[in-house]
Amino acid sequence: MIIQLIEEISTTQKEHIVHKVESLGYQLSEVTTQKGHYLIAVGKKDFDIRSVGRLDGVKDIHWVSDGYKLVSKKWKVGKTAIDLGDGIQIGDGSLAMMAGPCSIESEAQIKSTIQHLLENNIRIMRGGVYKPRSSPYAFRGLGIDGLKMWYELAKANGLKIITEVMQVSQIDAMLPYVDVFQVGARNMQNFNLLDALGAVDKPVMIKRAMSGTIDELLQCAEYVFSGGNEKIILCERGIRTYEKAYRNTFDLNAIPILKEKTHLPVVADPSHGIGLRDYVEDMALASIMAGADGVIYETHQTPEKAFSDGQQTLNFEESANLINKMKLTSNLRASF
Amino acid sequence: MIIQLIEEISTTQKEHIVHKVESLGYQLSEVTTQKGHYLIAVGKKDFDIRSVGRLDGVKDIHWVSDGYKLVSKKWKVGKTAIDLGDGIQIGDGSLAMMAGPCSIESEAQIKSTIQHLLENNIRIMRGGVYKPRSSPYAFRGLGIDGLKMWYELAKANGLKIITEVMQVSQIDAMLPYVDVFQVGARNMQNFNLLDALGAVDKPVMIKRAMSGTIDELLQCAEYVFSGGNEKIILCERGIRTYEKAYRNTFDLNAIPILKEKTHLPVVADPSHGIGLRDYVEDMALASIMAGADGVIYETHQTPEKAFSDGQQTLNFEESANLINKMKLTSNLRASF
Amino acid sequence: MIIQLIEEISTTQKEHIVHKVESLGYQLSEVTTQKGHYLIAVGKKDFDIRSVGRLDGVKDIHWVSDGYKLVSKKWKVGKTAIDLGDGIQIGDGSLAMMAGPCSIESEAQIKSTIQHLLENNIRIMRGGVYKPRSSPYAFRGLGIDGLKMWYELAKANGLKIITEVMQVSQIDAMLPYVDVFQVGARNMQNFNLLDALGAVDKPVMIKRAMSGTIDELLQCAEYVFSGGNEKIILCERGIRTYEKAYRNTFDLNAIPILKEKTHLPVVADPSHGIGLRDYVEDMALASIMAGADGVIYETHQTPEKAFSDGQQTLNFEESANLINKMKLTSNLRASF
Amino acid sequence: MIIQLIEEISTTQKEHIVHKVESLGYQLSEVTTQKGHYLIAVGKKDFDIRSVGRLDGVKDIHWVSDGYKLVSKKWKVGKTAIDLGDGIQIGDGSLAMMAGPCSIESEAQIKSTIQHLLENNIRIMRGGVYKPRSSPYAFRGLGIDGLKMWYELAKANGLKIITEVMQVSQIDAMLPYVDVFQVGARNMQNFNLLDALGAVDKPVMIKRAMSGTIDELLQCAEYVFSGGNEKIILCERGIRTYEKAYRNTFDLNAIPILKEKTHLPVVADPSHGIGLRDYVEDMALASIMAGADGVIYETHQTPEKAFSDGQQTLNFEESANLINKMKLTSNLRASF
Repeated sequence: MIIQLIEEISTTQKEHIVHKVESLGYQLSEVTTQKGHYLIAVGKKDFDIRSVGRLDGVKDIHWVSDGYKLVSKKWKVGKTAIDLGDGIQIGDGSLAMMAGPCSIESEAQIKSTIQHLLENNIRIMRGGVYKPRSSPYAFRGLGIDGLKMWYELAKANGLKIITEVMQVSQIDAMLPYVDVFQVGARNMQNFNLLDALGAVDKPVMIKRAMSGTIDELLQCAEYVFSGGNEKIILCERGIRTYEKAYRNTFDLNAIPILKEKTHLPVVADPSHGIGLRDYVEDMALASIMAGADGVIYETHQTPEKAFSDGQQTLNFEESANLINKMKLTSNLRASF
Repeated sequence: MIIQLIEEISTTQKEHIVHKVESLGYQLSEVTTQKGHYLIAVGKKDFDIRSVGRLDGVKDIHWVSDGYKLVSKKWKVGKTAIDLGDGIQIGDGSLAMMAGPCSIESEAQIKSTIQHLLENNIRIMRGGVYKPRSSPYAFRGLGIDGLKMWYELAKANGLKIITEVMQVSQIDAMLPYVDVFQVGARNMQNFNLLDALGAVDKPVMIKRAMSGTIDELLQCAEYVFSGGNEKIILCERGIRTYEKAYRNTFDLNAIPILKEKTHLPVVADPSHGIGLRDYVEDMALASIMAGADGVIYETHQTPEKAFSDGQQTLNFEESANLINKMKLTSNLRASF
Repeated sequence: MIIQLIEEISTTQKEHIVHKVESLGYQLSEVTTQKGHYLIAVGKKDFDIRSVGRLDGVKDIHWVSDGYKLVSKKWKVGKTAIDLGDGIQIGDGSLAMMAGPCSIESEAQIKSTIQHLLENNIRIMRGGVYKPRSSPYAFRGLGIDGLKMWYELAKANGLKIITEVMQVSQIDAMLPYVDVFQVGARNMQNFNLLDALGAVDKPVMIKRAMSGTIDELLQCAEYVFSGGNEKIILCERGIRTYEKAYRNTFDLNAIPILKEKTHLPVVADPSHGIGLRDYVEDMALASIMAGADGVIYETHQTPEKAFSDGQQTLNFEESANLINKMKLTSNLRASF
Repeated sequence: MIIQLIEEISTTQKEHIVHKVESLGYQLSEVTTQKGHYLIAVGKKDFDIRSVGRLDGVKDIHWVSDGYKLVSKKWKVGKTAIDLGDGIQIGDGSLAMMAGPCSIESEAQIKSTIQHLLENNIRIMRGGVYKPRSSPYAFRGLGIDGLKMWYELAKANGLKIITEVMQVSQIDAMLPYVDVFQVGARNMQNFNLLDALGAVDKPVMIKRAMSGTIDELLQCAEYVFSGGNEKIILCERGIRTYEKAYRNTFDLNAIPILKEKTHLPVVADPSHGIGLRDYVEDMALASIMAGADGVIYETHQTPEKAFSDGQQTLNFEESANLINKMKLTSNLRASF
């Protein structure tokens, strides 16, 4: 059960509500975000919620039987759009496109990518400065210095930055230079990281883990929301199955299901999803038709020379082509 | 290696080719289909294939290193279209649409379905008369009598029939009444059934098994082809993964990959694919964008009363809506 | 619900029972096996089963809510032992050991294997004469002639034969020469084959499909049982997962679970289970500790020359070693 | 390639080696642990390693082609035993047994568990004070205060503590009170946590992720090792598959495979592995037969009242029974 409180609630009013709900055998968690003030009540007993709903200080109240609460569509029926500033939104009904290299490598690479994005009206740039790598001996990214260099160039060109944060201690240093924090698939259930991202006022995109269930992904979003941050985006990026013909099994089923279960925007990552360059376009377009609010993909001037993920990265010509087709596909779907 | 022979090859010519290839350490299988006459050579030794290619009686020759040979795009670069007669094709570049109930139940049900299909210009009707059921105590279909009744009504209305064949002994009886034999997911690797379907001159649609790999599916098609029947359609219908939010995980990755590896048409079955009615439309449209040559789905006048699979079956209004959107989606993709 | 009828039931008595049960809204299937005569009632309405239980002609009655009925431990609490004759049993509390090559290849190979088995007191020999192969161009087995040759040699040495049957039309010809029919993983849900094996009076061992669930495997056993044959053995042989370090993921969890759910014997196949020779011993011993009633594995005089599955086949020295350890392990477990 | 350096290596000697190896096109990482000093060289060019091996300062050198290096059996052929002090070891050839509750709940619960362990000669106690929970609203453990209380009681009774660490910032505070740090399945690829645990001189047990591959698990161990800590234990605890009959699919195949690939000890967790109390015993015994160096499982005085994981937790009677059988099983296997 979710109880939204009025903004100007008094201590007495809140205590009265808490007392009432706890007396019904429910455990309460208090959640304060940028946008609201909530009590989350977990329990089993059935009762008439109007008896709580009419108490002073209650703005709204709903049963939400799922394990996740505030991210559920049972709580908020409409769609949540995430505002990145400068008129750039994710989840507002238009298609959000995010592109860039797997790893940020050099100033020249950033510049060539920015030029490509500008030419194609893409306003959100992806790239990794902290890279989770299977091997400890592999390239782990340029770190905070790479991020700062990237930020200067991006800002000067009106681009927003989405990049992965790998641990709690990186958040503060990254904060001024990041527009969307990305939680990688391997960290989906890094609950401390999710808690900490709940305490910042920047959008967070959570990628589904390689074997993450739909339900778990939503619970992870609930961690960030209940930590205080309502600005959450979900991302499907491929799961693990028995099939070896592709790197991952991009699970497009997740898109309509997530959009039915949550009010948060849902984005597709076809590059990691299928993991093979030749099929990224098909899967990107399919994900739009399946209802994705956005597409994030990898592009690089010379994919064969990329520090990482070259085999799934588009060159700029392929990328420009894809952007054009994505727009047409998005327009068709919007007309349905 | 595939050696295509000329039609009018003489015994001496063929013996000469066989002798030459076997002397190189290769094992030969002879394949005669409706459309061609081939020798399939399996071996390891490297040699200049022109030494075989220039022999009398050889029409064409190619290395095909995959486990599957004749169904590979390395053998035939273009696309194979399957002709059902009366101008109805699958794989000719247009979108093939196939719809109907899970099970054929009654004359009234067939008639209502046919009317719905005619109103929407759908010319291939699906339906099961032999039903593979998990439980021996469940409804197993109307059998050959149901098929005959259906055939009369379909023929009178210019519709083609696609229906599942479950075992070798059913083929002969079904043959006059069927336009496309469907091999179900549970029978994908029923090699005797595939062998037997190689001996008929009717199109065969093979569904990917619940844990069938891309490679295995193509090898199963090779069984039918090498048995003598080139008229093969492949169908993706969802695989088994850890995720429990949907009945199956509809694997759209399979579509572009199959179309890269084989010249055969590839069809998508979103009804079984995701297994939940509310998401069939999204997945059907996504599969078209992913490159499917056709879509097969379940529709019923009153899905809630269907003998089987009601939870994934569209009613006629939903079906009509879907058909309209599929056409627009197919048109957009064709324009790319 | 299962209603066991008395042997000498009269037509009137049976009609009376049928009438009563159908009037309660239940659908009835009649099952007659080597050992009993049953009515299987499927329905939803709750009622006091004693009202049926006290009717004339009823020997026993039980609710069984699972999808599978007669194979359930809710029906038969004890264990079913399968008698192969000559004092050889599977599921009688001792450990059944079955060994032999993947494929029957030649008289010499059969003879060397038989000698090895005799030296180690193994009395059930495995081997394939019909081989399900991924590729149509691979060796498909010696067929019925190979089986006859094998039978003569096995019989002369007091050995029993377990071998795979792939299709209905093979059953009659194989019947005189087979002691246990094996249904392969790819045919687990070949319902026509299961139906037909329900009509013979020979033991049937059903292998779990590569993505077969525990529930599905039991329903497949129910097919054979309801077809009239109570002599059924279940076999775990590895499932498909994302892990590529082994050929299959041998699922030992299935063993205690199956033994809790069914009265049928459960056998483990570590050779296919893990698919790598070096680990067959560890997995065989582990499966005994997990509660398997028997172990079936592959052995060959010269595994590196075997026609198929050489990489998972033990040589005779390894096999003899394993047999010794299996006996000691089985003895320890029996002492618990 | 791994180059072990002599302890008293001079700067000049090391520079000479580095120069030589880099000139061959290899990238070097320097690793210093409690026990050794290594250079890890990653590259592709083939050369005679004796040309490096005979340089001054080189103690040992080996090619290790796997992605993981120092944890590979290609580097260290024998077995690594982890010494917890007071004569308690993991991986020394005897069976290590670790037991205790899922969550540390109270002083009374700790005391009753300790008494049970002492009565059965178990000297390593497991329990969680930081609990990774799917839902943000669930019990998250008693934290550092719970750990301190537990430590006092454990120490007084000569027991060692194994408990999960969830994030880098917890390590310092936990360090004095922990004998083995456990990295949970959800954190297997939390590379920052692995790096940080590489910097402490306490044993670390890494649990395989729910969809972690064998190769990835070994690479995660390489993170800890290359960070400077050689005291690593691996743990199999069940993976995600399509099967829904058990909570996880306990993957015993992993045990012999890991023991073939690495010199590190391998432990089995049957409680999480199968996730159902009734089958924990069978799976524990099977894991010993498969070659596990130890077993870690959950026990609680009153499992039905446990704060978490009660459905997979043994009561003390079941636990005592299991311990007895584990010893007998371990003895049998040691005799092979």
